[in-house]
Amino acid sequence: MKFKVHRDQFVQGVQHVAKSISQRTTIPILTGMKLEASAEGVTLTGSDSDISIEYFIPKEDEEHQYVEVFEEGSIVLQAKYFTEIVKKLPKETVEISVQDQFATTVMSGSAVFNLNGLDPEEYPRLPQVEEDKTFQIPKDLLKNLIRQTVFATSNAETRPILTGVHWQLNDEQLTCSATDSHRLAMRKAKINTNSSGLSFSNVVIPGKSLSELSKVLNDSDELVDVVVSENQILFKADHFLFFSRLLEGNYPATENMIPTEAKTSVILQSKRFLSAIERSMLLSEDNKNNVVNLKTIGNGMLEITSVTPEVGKATEEVTSEEMSGEDLRISFNGKNLIDALKVVDSEEVKIDFTGAMSPFVLKPTDHDHSLHLFSPVRTY
Amino acid sequence: MKFKVHRDQFVQGVQHVAKSISQRTTIPILTGMKLEASAEGVTLTGSDSDISIEYFIPKEDEEHQYVEVFEEGSIVLQAKYFTEIVKKLPKETVEISVQDQFATTVMSGSAVFNLNGLDPEEYPRLPQVEEDKTFQIPKDLLKNLIRQTVFATSNAETRPILTGVHWQLNDEQLTCSATDSHRLAMRKAKINTNSSGLSFSNVVIPGKSLSELSKVLNDSDELVDVVVSENQILFKADHFLFFSRLLEGNYPATENMIPTEAKTSVILQSKRFLSAIERSMLLSEDNKNNVVNLKTIGNGMLEITSVTPEVGKATEEVTSEEMSGEDLRISFNGKNLIDALKVVDSEEVKIDFTGAMSPFVLKPTDHDHSLHLFSPVRTY
Repeated sequence: MKFKVHRDQFVQGVQHVAKSISQRTTIPILTGMKLEASAEGVTLTGSDSDISIEYFIPKEDEEHQYVEVFEEGSIVLQAKYFTEIVKKLPKETVEISVQDQFATTVMSGSAVFNLNGLDPEEYPRLPQVEEDKTFQIPKDLLKNLIRQTVFATSNAETRPILTGVHWQLNDEQLTCSATDSHRLAMRKAKINTNSSGLSFSNVVIPGKSLSELSKVLNDSDELVDVVVSENQILFKADHFLFFSRLLEGNYPATENMIPTEAKTSVILQSKRFLSAIERSMLLSEDNKNNVVNLKTIGNGMLEITSVTPEVGKATEEVTSEEMSGEDLRISFNGKNLIDALKVVDSEEVKIDFTGAMSPFVLKPTDHDHSLHLFSPVRTY
Repeated sequence: MKFKVHRDQFVQGVQHVAKSISQRTTIPILTGMKLEASAEGVTLTGSDSDISIEYFIPKEDEEHQYVEVFEEGSIVLQAKYFTEIVKKLPKETVEISVQDQFATTVMSGSAVFNLNGLDPEEYPRLPQVEEDKTFQIPKDLLKNLIRQTVFATSNAETRPILTGVHWQLNDEQLTCSATDSHRLAMRKAKINTNSSGLSFSNVVIPGKSLSELSKVLNDSDELVDVVVSENQILFKADHFLFFSRLLEGNYPATENMIPTEAKTSVILQSKRFLSAIERSMLLSEDNKNNVVNLKTIGNGMLEITSVTPEVGKATEEVTSEEMSGEDLRISFNGKNLIDALKVVDSEEVKIDFTGAMSPFVLKPTDHDHSLHLFSPVRTY
């Protein structure tokens, strides 16, 4: 194998693919990045067996030539070193060539790196995904769907299914939900399935995969192809393929956990409410249960308090925009509210309470495509 | 105690003083910050027993009133919580008042924090420093002196004296040196002592103290008073006092370690040489000895190589601006060269070698106020 490539295009590809490579894998070849030069261009591949990324640098486009291939072939290079080398190359082109025994030379200007490569034949094949269930979604919407749900997944491996985000497509509506069993985040979006009538349910994508995917997507309205299969999901953008395995098991039914009526309703300014809860949490010890107490105090006012016995007490009054229903005292995990308020894209939120011991619902007032549900905390 | 203070001035003071407070102290009261309100203004104090910082917010200056004191007094508050609270207060003024049993209230707008304070009588007195040995130095020069020496101090507690920077004042010249016994950084500066004939030697300031001092100094040419005593050094700027204890023991004589002649001399572009060494280190495993080999290859060229057996080899040729003397092969710790080249403020550096087994000297070509010395590494 021997090719020359534009450094900047190459750096971008290498950095994308590096996101899928972990040094803590039990399969040694997966600590490497696979490079493959063909008549069409250069393909880079990385995988940690949960996520796989394939990135393609074409030989040329209308404007530029990016790659010059002198000899086709492939090699696997230690990603840890190779990624750092590529970022620090001195000149605008890089030449990579493989000699005997997988010995590889990376050259740029007067800098030469002789690297011990690995046998590309040992590199696992990427998952095969049948392309019968496919829909399209703009990159920026996909990033939002991820940002507004993934934080609510569980970190605990006791119920592995809850470490993923549940995707369901029905009547051109995609519903994404995540829960750690104490809070739920749900985000809906209209999807154009080109009247194929495509629908699916119980597709559960690992939260970590979605976080990594979000990092390699730019904020544009370009469309991404999403291909759903039995145990894999594939995202296809212009230059890359992003594969993730799906979680096995049945995702709990969440729709019917959401209360439909309210005993007390409050409308609050999102940012003002977020700051007040953040302040009330300042006295919480790290890794404690982060309990915040909220009560109505008349005149459309709420009082937020939080007590840490050794340290002290935080109290803050918040004026609501609108309040109706019964008086209320309730306690909840403040950190969960903060997580949700940080991703709400609406200046005001409405909270519907159904009593001190029942879950409550937070929704933006601007639109109804997202919803957050929280369990109260028992404080006695 | 009861006072009102402008939030922004207060935040600045609290953040400065917080730099001297450690949660890992064996003296519980030192996890707190002392606040003292007097007729003149508010004084904040923090200390980790090595470093102490006192910050003063005056009642007013020509333009603004900053503090309104209703009742003089003092209190000690848990710095960990208090610092975070102050940063997140909602309104432009803060009111702090102490009730019985050191119970303290911090109020801003509708946010109220009730904190358990500590007895200010238990807070240790700041060190007393006799002001007979005093000189002045501009803040930006002081920051440079620190930046260009402190990195070369030792982290090992086996020779505690080497964890400090040695300061010596003689004939209006301040000489700062730091060494970890493998490399030495030396920086000289002309100091105006107002013809007091002030001189001292064997003043050794902990590197950590200087790093913290550097963080609280802004980049201006305002003068700082430096007061040197038997076991303390005090830096006095407009709003704050910064005390550090001095290290006990005799600093090794370093001046006579510096070779005065050269067998091979090279002049190199600082940035170009820095990048080349950084690249040659890309294959080094973390925490290894970072050996870089350098040899002359004729025509004013140097070859830099570094080998990590399992990974590969990095080679780079560097063109010198000027070279004279014998051919040379030498190995050294590349990380030490990088540290020095990062703080050199000259476009070119001159390196004088006195053979493969002898220390070599790196100096800027623009001026002669700084110098770096390196031990070679034996590779056989």
